[in-house]
Amino acid sequence: MTEKLFVRIVRKFESKRSNGKMQNCEEQKYGIRKLEISDKGKGFIELLQQLSVCDSVSDKEFEDRFRELSAVGDDHVIGVIEDEASGKIIATGSVFIEKKFMRNCGKVGHIEDVVVDSSARGKHLGKRIINFLTEHARSMGCYKVILDCSVENKAFYEKCGFQQKSVQMALYFADH
Amino acid sequence: MTEKLFVRIVRKFESKRSNGKMQNCEEQKYGIRKLEISDKGKGFIELLQQLSVCDSVSDKEFEDRFRELSAVGDDHVIGVIEDEASGKIIATGSVFIEKKFMRNCGKVGHIEDVVVDSSARGKHLGKRIINFLTEHARSMGCYKVILDCSVENKAFYEKCGFQQKSVQMALYFADH
Repeated sequence: MTEKLFVRIVRKFESKRSNGKMQNCEEQKYGIRKLEISDKGKGFIELLQQLSVCDSVSDKEFEDRFRELSAVGDDHVIGVIEDEASGKIIATGSVFIEKKFMRNCGKVGHIEDVVVDSSARGKHLGKRIINFLTEHARSMGCYKVILDCSVENKAFYEKCGFQQKSVQMALYFADH
Repeated sequence: MTEKLFVRIVRKFESKRSNGKMQNCEEQKYGIRKLEISDKGKGFIELLQQLSVCDSVSDKEFEDRFRELSAVGDDHVIGVIEDEASGKIIATGSVFIEKKFMRNCGKVGHIEDVVVDSSARGKHLGKRIINFLTEHARSMGCYKVILDCSVENKAFYEKCGFQQKSVQMALYFADH
């Protein structure tokens, strides 16, 4: 091996290692994990407010719902990304597993309530949340994972591997 | 009161009673109820096949899934309509209740797997199934009920009170 070639190989190796380190560093900085009961104090509810109405959840209501969801274990998982620097939850999304008779007693993952903090956009946190939830659905034996989104967000989900399948219909109850 | 008026009132009353009886009769003929474990023998799985793949569900698989769903009680309900004359299940649909943090710890009903036997169309059985599932979601305190459908079926769900809200995206896992 010539010295020139050896230097090129070493440089390439070091560059790869350095890229890997940077990626690890990013992933450590924005670690993804399941929701914890202490996350209410880390701005989890305020984050949800960026997506829809969520302006009056008491500590008791939060804890009751947390325990209710924990009781079903892997059938309902909420992923969060915490910014280690600020100690704030800056991205979240949930997936729950529907058990069917259809598709030979198949299972479907339903992704809901995906939101990234407005100050933390452009860091691919949304994609990491979707990957986390999708992989959970796959590991649970689902034959598909589905979600509903606005037409504006279609392109993002297409980048995550999703395709438009049908239309979503909703009926709102007036008394809520 | 003149005799003529009296006769008119009596006729109107009898006509109403007779209409009511006919309606009751139809409702008795096509009674709606929750899925029972004996419904596999009444063509429930064959009915699902009219909607999507469902060609190999053993008795044990059916019973296991039935018990799994029964364990969550009102959080997952499957409605069926049985034709009393033939003893066959001719319409079905399911609804499960998603518990959120969003919308102040709100709940959402998800309607899935609605199908009416091809030989029983035109009897408004689909609408009765949807009403049954929607009313269940309302009684469970949901703030909305949602479903995904093809563009062709939009008009039917609009007649049931639904409106298009967004688009449904799906990701299928190759290993299923």
